[in-house]
Amino acid sequence: MKTISENRCFGGVQGVYSHRPACCDSEMTFGLFLPEEARDGPVPVLWYLSGLTCTHENAMIKAGAQGWAAEHGVALVFPDTSPRGEHVADDEAFDLGQGAGFYLDATQEPWSDHYRMESYIVGELPGLLFEEFALDVERQAITGHSMGGHGALTLAMRHPGRYRSVSAFSPIANPTASDWGRKQFAAYLGEGADASGHDASLLMADRGFDGPVLIDQGSDDQFLDLLRPETLAHAMMARRQQGQFRMQPGYDHSYFFIASFMEDHLAFHAEALWS
Amino acid sequence: MKTISENRCFGGVQGVYSHRPACCDSEMTFGLFLPEEARDGPVPVLWYLSGLTCTHENAMIKAGAQGWAAEHGVALVFPDTSPRGEHVADDEAFDLGQGAGFYLDATQEPWSDHYRMESYIVGELPGLLFEEFALDVERQAITGHSMGGHGALTLAMRHPGRYRSVSAFSPIANPTASDWGRKQFAAYLGEGADASGHDASLLMADRGFDGPVLIDQGSDDQFLDLLRPETLAHAMMARRQQGQFRMQPGYDHSYFFIASFMEDHLAFHAEALWS
Repeated sequence: MKTISENRCFGGVQGVYSHRPACCDSEMTFGLFLPEEARDGPVPVLWYLSGLTCTHENAMIKAGAQGWAAEHGVALVFPDTSPRGEHVADDEAFDLGQGAGFYLDATQEPWSDHYRMESYIVGELPGLLFEEFALDVERQAITGHSMGGHGALTLAMRHPGRYRSVSAFSPIANPTASDWGRKQFAAYLGEGADASGHDASLLMADRGFDGPVLIDQGSDDQFLDLLRPETLAHAMMARRQQGQFRMQPGYDHSYFFIASFMEDHLAFHAEALWS
Repeated sequence: MKTISENRCFGGVQGVYSHRPACCDSEMTFGLFLPEEARDGPVPVLWYLSGLTCTHENAMIKAGAQGWAAEHGVALVFPDTSPRGEHVADDEAFDLGQGAGFYLDATQEPWSDHYRMESYIVGELPGLLFEEFALDVERQAITGHSMGGHGALTLAMRHPGRYRSVSAFSPIANPTASDWGRKQFAAYLGEGADASGHDASLLMADRGFDGPVLIDQGSDDQFLDLLRPETLAHAMMARRQQGQFRMQPGYDHSYFFIASFMEDHLAFHAEALWS
């Protein structure tokens, strides 16, 4: 693991590090915010998964999360959204390939050599983090935005018992029925493959989440047709899933929306992490 | 004036606009955050001046200021740091020319045709803002970072009665004695010109500020030798200037530092603006 930078931030440290996980066979960069309390021992950790075209950096600099994380004594992890590098397959579209890993393990060439983001997020990256930093493996929660909201919700439901709470900002909520999903599932998993295990609405209908769920969606989001929030809301309420789905009037898909409600999401996760 | 974007943010609106002020003879872009209260009538306004290489965008997306501004019902203005465009003089150095206006009116060719940032910040931009938006001309305050901290402090002292309070994050505090200042003053104002009227420490020693002053400086700032905070602190305390200068242990020059203390700065200005 290499240290790229460490900046003092809200009494703690905002670090950026890189390493080379075997699953992705590529140099991967991530951000980690450690609150002041991490000096004295392991702290709970909130994973933040980013959206299409983002790197580890977007949320780290634009979401305003560190202040609230510091207030609650919670660490934040900001992983990248895909493997990177000249030797890594890519596509000219912004929504396939580098910057668009969709938080799953690809099974199809040329993607399967590097695009193993599920193994990375639930395997190699936590393996490194809990070894190197004062983080409490028993107290994890997960959130994300757009494609990262999809990642947070699907990983939380695919790995029961791992995360105590899950939230999302404007998630891609029903990708098997959206152009943000069908194309990528066909490429990464194969034309006609069953991708229902990577669709938050279908997972919610099938198994749900054993803990609280919080979803925020802006009513003026320019991608509402691609996100399909109504499908997830339906699945949540049909299942009687513990949680809430909030439609925020006038907000769009931007980080201005995320920042506006980050305080609520940190408080929501802190309650689950510290209970 | 052109509207480039408007995003709902913390109950208000984060807008980006452009116009072409005569003083700079160049298209200028600025950000404006209006809190919810601006729907009902004029609100107080805090000016945020950015540092070297920045545009209107840096603080708008990285400083975490809107949430605190919303809490206090205060608008935020994020101007650019220089005129821009192919017809505008520039220099290959990052600290001269475009992105490095130093918040003064240049008198020397080729800069004097466009680099009139003082006239812009205290003249044409407020002229437009108070005409177009629900902002209270009687309730203005100013802050900034690095070169923008220099701008905030010098403009506040050069224009008594205009701003009720002034603050700065890691300001260029004594530019006549720094490589961040001497080179630029020689270019913009002429070799050997008296630039003491654009030096916060000298202005503080000479006249001070008729209101509260708050300065935050990180102890691990990589540019301490260029910023010369000790000179300004000396001048403030020698004058018995109302205010405080805070050396924050471990923090550096980055936006992580700014974000960490933005809450305090907004509270500080709100107290002056609402009293």
